[in-house]
Amino acid sequence: MKHITAGDIKGMEKIFRLNLINSCTGYKSANLIATKSRNNLVNVAVFSSVTHLGSDPALLGFVTRPTHVPRNTYKNIKESSCFTVNHVQENMIESAHQTAAKYDEDVSEFQKTGLEEEYLDDFFAPYVKQSTVKLGCKYRNEYHIKENNTLLVVASIEHIYFDESIQAPDGWLRLDDAGTVAVNGLDGYALPSLLDRFHYARPGQEIKSFFKNKSSAEN
Amino acid sequence: MKHITAGDIKGMEKIFRLNLINSCTGYKSANLIATKSRNNLVNVAVFSSVTHLGSDPALLGFVTRPTHVPRNTYKNIKESSCFTVNHVQENMIESAHQTAAKYDEDVSEFQKTGLEEEYLDDFFAPYVKQSTVKLGCKYRNEYHIKENNTLLVVASIEHIYFDESIQAPDGWLRLDDAGTVAVNGLDGYALPSLLDRFHYARPGQEIKSFFKNKSSAEN
Repeated sequence: MKHITAGDIKGMEKIFRLNLINSCTGYKSANLIATKSRNNLVNVAVFSSVTHLGSDPALLGFVTRPTHVPRNTYKNIKESSCFTVNHVQENMIESAHQTAAKYDEDVSEFQKTGLEEEYLDDFFAPYVKQSTVKLGCKYRNEYHIKENNTLLVVASIEHIYFDESIQAPDGWLRLDDAGTVAVNGLDGYALPSLLDRFHYARPGQEIKSFFKNKSSAEN
Repeated sequence: MKHITAGDIKGMEKIFRLNLINSCTGYKSANLIATKSRNNLVNVAVFSSVTHLGSDPALLGFVTRPTHVPRNTYKNIKESSCFTVNHVQENMIESAHQTAAKYDEDVSEFQKTGLEEEYLDDFFAPYVKQSTVKLGCKYRNEYHIKENNTLLVVASIEHIYFDESIQAPDGWLRLDDAGTVAVNGLDGYALPSLLDRFHYARPGQEIKSFFKNKSSAEN
């Protein structure tokens, strides 16, 4: 196995380090965060840092650098206290990636990428029409991570939209039925297929699959 | 589309809410965090919250609830200031899930799950031998997320191990070559395949694939 040390990382060329360090922690979620400013300028940007924080209360977090692109997202969230999180699917990966381009502040990435705005249930921020799983979120707090001057934004989940067919009777959303992709590094998009789903683990008991025939997660 | 509101979420049965909220933010990373206590008791536990925080300095974070299982992980990190992050692959998903069982404090999940300890380059914490991508990390800080009494642990990446064949010339690790899985919700394990990888996005320019023939990411 190749061994890379802290000294090697420090000495790396910047883009090489970005690629390596962004891919070494495993797959990341692929979400479009959409917002609207007080002046009704809309914004949509791809994020790979949206993470589950807790289910009661239902909270998620994402990491942003307020002084960097996509800074409009953060500015709009601070102005409006709300944003939407929209899963990226296979047919949207080019459009999602294009939202990372440094457009001028008054340009809507919706107009430039083929992604469509959608307004649901009087929520102020737009959703992405094409997306098959969408969350309406309310800003709750932020934590300054001083080690690298980033912010962890904490938000509550106020609305969830999805096609009923992807939900199991116990509440679980089967993401490969939604067509949701995952991010590998900065710029790789991967499509997962479910291998298996397991019941709650207990000491001294064998792991049990949710599917009768363990060789197939399709049953 | 089905619409679920904040009120619906609040009123849900606990397990149903856990399943829904854990799966609605998209795929999560699948990592085994391994630690060792001052008394040389080892511990390994599956986490889905390990997230990239920044590449210069190389930082990752994960979320834990200090008063909940797997509390040994947190206790050992506080004692030793170090831990390892080991990617979960397809042939390890049962073992990885089994580490979530509530074993007694003096029981090593390594002994109970078939995962093997490995010590590399005098690092205090064990790695998971079977894992194809492993990180040696040093505790840097923690942030108390008061909205749900969790902790974001921030750590620096001190060592990276991987098979040289999965790295592109520009530093990127191709995770489907590593066999790395992703987590869907609390208990679903999915295997991603790379769809495409794109060059840096710029306004007014079409997205360019890293692969000549866009119909195949294998080229």
